[in-house]
Amino acid sequence: MTGEGNPVSFTVRQLADLVQGQVVGDGERLVLHARTLAEAREGDISFLEHDKYLPQLLASQASVIVVSPNIPIEGRTLIQAKDPLAAFVAIVKKLQNKPELTPMGIDPRAAVHPSAQVGADPSIGPFAAIGEHCIVGARCRIHPGAVIGPNCKLGDDVVIYPNAVLYEGVVLGDRVIVHANTVLGADGFGYRFRNGKHVKVAQLGAVEVGNDVEIGSCTTIDRGAFQATRIGEGTKIDNLVQIAHNCNIGKHNLLISQMGIAGSSSTGDYVVIAGQVGITDHVHIGEKAVIGAKAGVTKDIPAGQRTLGAPATPERDQKRILISLEKLPEMRKDIRKIKQQLGMDIEKEEG
Amino acid sequence: MTGEGNPVSFTVRQLADLVQGQVVGDGERLVLHARTLAEAREGDISFLEHDKYLPQLLASQASVIVVSPNIPIEGRTLIQAKDPLAAFVAIVKKLQNKPELTPMGIDPRAAVHPSAQVGADPSIGPFAAIGEHCIVGARCRIHPGAVIGPNCKLGDDVVIYPNAVLYEGVVLGDRVIVHANTVLGADGFGYRFRNGKHVKVAQLGAVEVGNDVEIGSCTTIDRGAFQATRIGEGTKIDNLVQIAHNCNIGKHNLLISQMGIAGSSSTGDYVVIAGQVGITDHVHIGEKAVIGAKAGVTKDIPAGQRTLGAPATPERDQKRILISLEKLPEMRKDIRKIKQQLGMDIEKEEG
Amino acid sequence: MTGEGNPVSFTVRQLADLVQGQVVGDGERLVLHARTLAEAREGDISFLEHDKYLPQLLASQASVIVVSPNIPIEGRTLIQAKDPLAAFVAIVKKLQNKPELTPMGIDPRAAVHPSAQVGADPSIGPFAAIGEHCIVGARCRIHPGAVIGPNCKLGDDVVIYPNAVLYEGVVLGDRVIVHANTVLGADGFGYRFRNGKHVKVAQLGAVEVGNDVEIGSCTTIDRGAFQATRIGEGTKIDNLVQIAHNCNIGKHNLLISQMGIAGSSSTGDYVVIAGQVGITDHVHIGEKAVIGAKAGVTKDIPAGQRTLGAPATPERDQKRILISLEKLPEMRKDIRKIKQQLGMDIEKEEG
Repeated sequence: MTGEGNPVSFTVRQLADLVQGQVVGDGERLVLHARTLAEAREGDISFLEHDKYLPQLLASQASVIVVSPNIPIEGRTLIQAKDPLAAFVAIVKKLQNKPELTPMGIDPRAAVHPSAQVGADPSIGPFAAIGEHCIVGARCRIHPGAVIGPNCKLGDDVVIYPNAVLYEGVVLGDRVIVHANTVLGADGFGYRFRNGKHVKVAQLGAVEVGNDVEIGSCTTIDRGAFQATRIGEGTKIDNLVQIAHNCNIGKHNLLISQMGIAGSSSTGDYVVIAGQVGITDHVHIGEKAVIGAKAGVTKDIPAGQRTLGAPATPERDQKRILISLEKLPEMRKDIRKIKQQLGMDIEKEEG
Repeated sequence: MTGEGNPVSFTVRQLADLVQGQVVGDGERLVLHARTLAEAREGDISFLEHDKYLPQLLASQASVIVVSPNIPIEGRTLIQAKDPLAAFVAIVKKLQNKPELTPMGIDPRAAVHPSAQVGADPSIGPFAAIGEHCIVGARCRIHPGAVIGPNCKLGDDVVIYPNAVLYEGVVLGDRVIVHANTVLGADGFGYRFRNGKHVKVAQLGAVEVGNDVEIGSCTTIDRGAFQATRIGEGTKIDNLVQIAHNCNIGKHNLLISQMGIAGSSSTGDYVVIAGQVGITDHVHIGEKAVIGAKAGVTKDIPAGQRTLGAPATPERDQKRILISLEKLPEMRKDIRKIKQQLGMDIEKEEG
Repeated sequence: MTGEGNPVSFTVRQLADLVQGQVVGDGERLVLHARTLAEAREGDISFLEHDKYLPQLLASQASVIVVSPNIPIEGRTLIQAKDPLAAFVAIVKKLQNKPELTPMGIDPRAAVHPSAQVGADPSIGPFAAIGEHCIVGARCRIHPGAVIGPNCKLGDDVVIYPNAVLYEGVVLGDRVIVHANTVLGADGFGYRFRNGKHVKVAQLGAVEVGNDVEIGSCTTIDRGAFQATRIGEGTKIDNLVQIAHNCNIGKHNLLISQMGIAGSSSTGDYVVIAGQVGITDHVHIGEKAVIGAKAGVTKDIPAGQRTLGAPATPERDQKRILISLEKLPEMRKDIRKIKQQLGMDIEKEEG
């Protein structure tokens, strides 16, 4: 664990009280470090997220374990809690003993345009730039070097990490998190071919991001051509993702690292798209569809469908193809043998 | 539409005059918003880019439509213009009523090295840094937080968006646009294996970018080892693209998002490379070649060839393979049946 | 070659002495430019890295060639050196005549928190930000706009290029190089699904990077959930790479551009992973494994194995599959013919 600042020790009972848990074993035992099962050493506290990790627990040196009630474990001190993961997060934070985040005000080295409106209790770091006519909600944290272009509108409790960039007119809901070096609202990739040259088509739309969206680092979401590129509320986007102009992403999607979606495509709610997937332009991914890693989507995907492969097909079909693919060299030999047996012509070349 | 600043309304006739168009219908009608066919509401102006979108037009609520001459549409007010897209762009800008971009000078919070030469009418934002001996042409706009390393040379009318980085010695032609958080001139990935370690080989070349090139956000173009990495004039590069050291990209290419090209490879003019394509090192892509999304290029591609797949093959071959691939499980069953009929041995295991 | 600053000419003998090489031919000849074989002009010096480039040498206009001893070449002046590449690097640098890098101190426009400890001879550029309680080793170079969050710890001789971002608590060994716009320590992609929403799980681990690691530009390495994400010493990471939370990357790996590795996966030492590879979560790549470009790794890879394809299989199997794949349309025709000959049913539809 890092950034420990000034770690302090607590008794098992103090930690159990913190998470409204029950102690089984020595409540007076002192604990200093919280670590995963694999990394824990004698004296540390760890946690069991799921029964399936019981073998790791048995191999772990951890002395104190946060577990669900009714899981019998011998030889360790236990804190039984209804939600062991949430309890462990609280315990880790307690032991890390970091100071609470308090509003830092506006650093005098930030460049906030006089026409910008900044809400209550801001934290704006050095070298952050906030452009003309921006409206920034309450309690926003704008980290060092972040650049918010003119006419942007940020809701309350928004966090913009260092060196992230919002171009002109980007709109973010409440509690949106934008990680470092991500770019929202750069021009969409729009050109027309005229007289031997690709001529830029002005990109005049916006980017609109709903409440509770989190966007990873080095991700790019382009502004629309004439309409907004939209991200629905609650959607979580990983690092290095590309969302092209005019896309309309539904609510509560998970878009995993290095996936990309081309212009004017859209997704329903609760869609999950795995890493390195590519989706072509002007298609729709139905709600609750799940697209497997590295898939190449070339057409609409119905709601609820699990899809794999490039070009993407329903998971069941793709799995049958993949199994057959492994047999392909053997199939080729078989065909050769059959043709021999039948006295059919066999081409001379051999792959 | 966003960043509307201070939108104003105009009559249909005023907008038609702006684009040298002909009014069919009520020229005195007032228009406030320009929107796409799908998003337009009663009273809005929209446009028809191509006949194939006629069904969308019929379903649209737009009251005023910018169209090519000679397309008969009933029940709407029309502005007939030779180039409806260009006309619509002009109309959108008119309605958005944003102030003209005027030179902003050099912000006192920028760090411009005293030895750098900056041309006429610059716009250099706060926290931009321009290194020793840089030469910056006329009317360049260097946005907040952009970093231009020493000995760079920028042509006239170059735009560098926020937090983009040019390492030492990068050369940009006129009217080049570099979007936010893009990196030009970082060291190429060059190492030699010596005594159990990968030892860095100094990367001493440059990056040279021709006139009218546009480069998206979070894209990386590495400096050459001993020669320049070059991007030919008029080429347009999307977001999250990787161009490795010593590459020589032709003129008027389109390189789509998340594609990557490895060291010392080159492309002819007018090449189009779709999203998530990977190209190996030391190959040449002939002029006007078109490489489909997600292709993996392992060897030279002849001029004009359309290529798909990983490993990439000519489009026609690849399509035949893909069609057969869907039939693969069935083919496997057929072979089994044939072998049975012929009394041949059948392996026991079943995939 | 760029950034030539103030190039100067030297005699062949002077350059040979610089690299402890032997002159064959005219040692008094003056040389001004060093270029690759392909780009060299009359009068330039070039080098021959390997015998296999002899044809390029014969076609080159270069007048002076740095070669290994015992390679007979007629009609050129030679500098024979044991390590021609290293010798050529030294000669290029000599001819470029750039000033030595000297410590620049801490720019008054940098924001170094008063509680941060900065080692001897620093170079910290304008608009760089160094957070609370950071410890920065000797001779570090922090370029303009780089942001080092609180509680980070940097070894000696670390280089952080412009606008790179280290979140809180990132630990870097000695001689680590982080290129521009790369992000270390952003939150891992961790959520739980509760009441129809993806709820963020706090990411409380760190990022720990060993000695002599180099990380390209626009790469993202996420902080661990409860443990550190670790990069072993001597590992080299290219541009636009994604390393997810809790990964444990071995020593002396090469991770090429646009590859991604999902959460909690690990690699042994001396692993090589080519461009655009994707690796799923919770798998281990054994030491000295080599994974080919665009592979999709879905399970553990044994030590030393060469792997290709998506899903990834051992190279030998994959090559057999790929060869058969080209024959697939033909195989389909063969099966049809066989079935005809045997009087078996043939489906009517034709792909």
